[in-house]
Amino acid sequence: MALIVQKYGGSSVADAESIKRVAKRIVDTRRAGHDVVVAVSAMGDTTDELLDLANQVAPIPAPRELDMLLSSGERISMALLAMAIHSMGFEARSFTGSQAGMITDARHGAARIVDVTPVRLREALDEGAIVIVAGFQGFNRDTRDITTLGRGGSDTTAVALAAALEADVCEIYSDVDGIFTADPRVVPRARKLDRISSEEMLELAANGAKVLYIRAVEYARRHGVLIHARSTFSSGEGTLVWGEGMRRNGVALTAGGGNAEGADMEEPIVAGVATDLSQAKITIIGVPDVPGKAAEIFKIVARSGANVDMIVQNVSAAATGLADISFTLPKADAATALKALSGHQAEVGFESLVHDDQIGKLSVVGVGMRTHSGVSATLFEALSIAGVNIEMISTSEIRISVLVRGDDLAEAARLVHTAYGLDGTVDATVHAGTGR
Amino acid sequence: MALIVQKYGGSSVADAESIKRVAKRIVDTRRAGHDVVVAVSAMGDTTDELLDLANQVAPIPAPRELDMLLSSGERISMALLAMAIHSMGFEARSFTGSQAGMITDARHGAARIVDVTPVRLREALDEGAIVIVAGFQGFNRDTRDITTLGRGGSDTTAVALAAALEADVCEIYSDVDGIFTADPRVVPRARKLDRISSEEMLELAANGAKVLYIRAVEYARRHGVLIHARSTFSSGEGTLVWGEGMRRNGVALTAGGGNAEGADMEEPIVAGVATDLSQAKITIIGVPDVPGKAAEIFKIVARSGANVDMIVQNVSAAATGLADISFTLPKADAATALKALSGHQAEVGFESLVHDDQIGKLSVVGVGMRTHSGVSATLFEALSIAGVNIEMISTSEIRISVLVRGDDLAEAARLVHTAYGLDGTVDATVHAGTGR
Repeated sequence: MALIVQKYGGSSVADAESIKRVAKRIVDTRRAGHDVVVAVSAMGDTTDELLDLANQVAPIPAPRELDMLLSSGERISMALLAMAIHSMGFEARSFTGSQAGMITDARHGAARIVDVTPVRLREALDEGAIVIVAGFQGFNRDTRDITTLGRGGSDTTAVALAAALEADVCEIYSDVDGIFTADPRVVPRARKLDRISSEEMLELAANGAKVLYIRAVEYARRHGVLIHARSTFSSGEGTLVWGEGMRRNGVALTAGGGNAEGADMEEPIVAGVATDLSQAKITIIGVPDVPGKAAEIFKIVARSGANVDMIVQNVSAAATGLADISFTLPKADAATALKALSGHQAEVGFESLVHDDQIGKLSVVGVGMRTHSGVSATLFEALSIAGVNIEMISTSEIRISVLVRGDDLAEAARLVHTAYGLDGTVDATVHAGTGR
Repeated sequence: MALIVQKYGGSSVADAESIKRVAKRIVDTRRAGHDVVVAVSAMGDTTDELLDLANQVAPIPAPRELDMLLSSGERISMALLAMAIHSMGFEARSFTGSQAGMITDARHGAARIVDVTPVRLREALDEGAIVIVAGFQGFNRDTRDITTLGRGGSDTTAVALAAALEADVCEIYSDVDGIFTADPRVVPRARKLDRISSEEMLELAANGAKVLYIRAVEYARRHGVLIHARSTFSSGEGTLVWGEGMRRNGVALTAGGGNAEGADMEEPIVAGVATDLSQAKITIIGVPDVPGKAAEIFKIVARSGANVDMIVQNVSAAATGLADISFTLPKADAATALKALSGHQAEVGFESLVHDDQIGKLSVVGVGMRTHSGVSATLFEALSIAGVNIEMISTSEIRISVLVRGDDLAEAARLVHTAYGLDGTVDATVHAGTGR
């Protein structure tokens, strides 16, 4: 008998029928002899509908009230889910974020969890009840106000509950079967991974993979929570996201599905390929090649609120003493960053700005890169054979990313996926949904 | 500067535009220099939609979870209202039932208020904020669960807050201008009353008038809260519902709008005429005329859950030793009561049951009845001239009710309204809405 935390997203509880399907899944887990704690998101588009209402009554809704409003969405879904379970003959109790002891700081709309005191949840579990908790919300002790956790909040709720309750596993359900070696919509031969290390998962998520939120994976890594990413629509095993020292059914987890002893030998070099079309590139042309210019520029960009990802500065032409600096950032941040830079053109002394939103980023991720050489050579060779031009390169200890033309991204991903021996034998699009 | 509690029902906050209109009204009250506490219902049909969802996932929703679900409706409307006020430049804070200190017993779906500890509301008022409270909901201290107050809950929330905060007045807004001498849809010449005593209001509400809920009026009477029933859609004065010893702007309130000294002289004998088409009549034919039979019968009816209103037993025919007993009850309760009685036919020994749902009840209410004679004579005479047959009669200290054919009810009400000199000079349907 284990304690299992499960998280169901908005699409899994979009209507009455879906809620009943999820209720059955929870009941099946209980029937198998496990204690179950569920974190649930708001139904389908509820959050967007509430946001829309808010914008109709107030151009800039007061943050405290916006959190009060949005937190009602999970209250609806969790109560319905508890009722559905109840009517199947099982005791179920729903708890709001504050009832569940999800204590956060006071940053409305983007609160961070500071403590989890699940006293009432433990009581309910001890009494044999299935526990349903509102995802995405908490409360602040000082203001006694309700807060929301922001993007990926429900995943984080689930992981935080799993950590506080010392659950055996945190199952995160979505409409895809697990973590794939690439996005199956881009690379049809992508394979579902049986397991992946949390550091690889973080790199994939940070570079375009959308199945799990970085924040939840980070929380899980820090608190030693084993995540199992799986599908609401199938009973098959999904993907385990494991960290240092984690065990499942008493066995230590390692990469590649091998056991602890054979692990190193069987470890794949590359875990997956991530693709990202959400970025834009800004090139600053004719920057005086004197010390401190880069710092000056990126201070301006940072103050505009943009999150810079890759940066490249070319060698200055000795004749002119001018260099070009390119960087990437989310498309949504580009306009603000461009405006901020233009406003400081005279001061910085650059010649012009070029904005390019037709780019794609391809990243190859794998802990095997630490110990294996030649990983980047394989990447560059594959792209070169395909005639794909590399515009920028950035690397971390376990990742290589390249910037290419957006139109080339899908083909590049398929070729690189093949080059690293990641291709499966069947078409993955049959198994995986179309993202969430 | 006064402390004013305002209550807005679901139709007053049905959409974004309505919410903004209500926000403006609240801000106007604040601008006039008053402290404002608002109790608000869920938007429009939200509660019905949530109930519908509940019934889709569970045939008999668990009561605790149903309250968790339904209480989210007010959380939405109150947050939107607070945002709308905020965006008009005024500080506004919303509070759930539990945050507002609305403490109830644990009867889910029909909880009674046992205490109100509005500590956070007082803090917010002291800080100059407008306070918005979720109507209809509270929480139980022992179970720490959320409860709902049932029918008329938001009116009761408002009155309970007014009592606990010692507010100067509790304004209950709806889509009608106030309390009328009769339902303007039935009696077009009905007049809006400037004031009415709470005991008259209770009798009118109990006999078909729908503007205020009995429960809220009772609470107000018991705790000395002055109610002002008025329209969301007009700035005119509505109707004050006053009780013994209540004052407004330092002046003691009395009936009829006169001041304290002249009150008795100007007091109208009849405050209003109530009509009710929601009842059915059951007649039990051939009941053995022996002691204890009535008790036996009404114990059976009570156990069926029916609320009996009027009862008439005719004189037994000496020859047969059998009597007929008729009683009225809500149409919705009739089927269950009939089934219960049939099940005990042999035991009670009656001959047959007659069910009649084509009846109407006309009630005349006025505290003047205590001191004036001839009130019933006026009623009977008016009905007799109109050729309306009276089927049953019941009276209280300040009310006379008669049962007539449902088809005769509207005409009877108009004639009686005229006979008591209640007619206004203009058509009231222009001023009043069509009920709420």
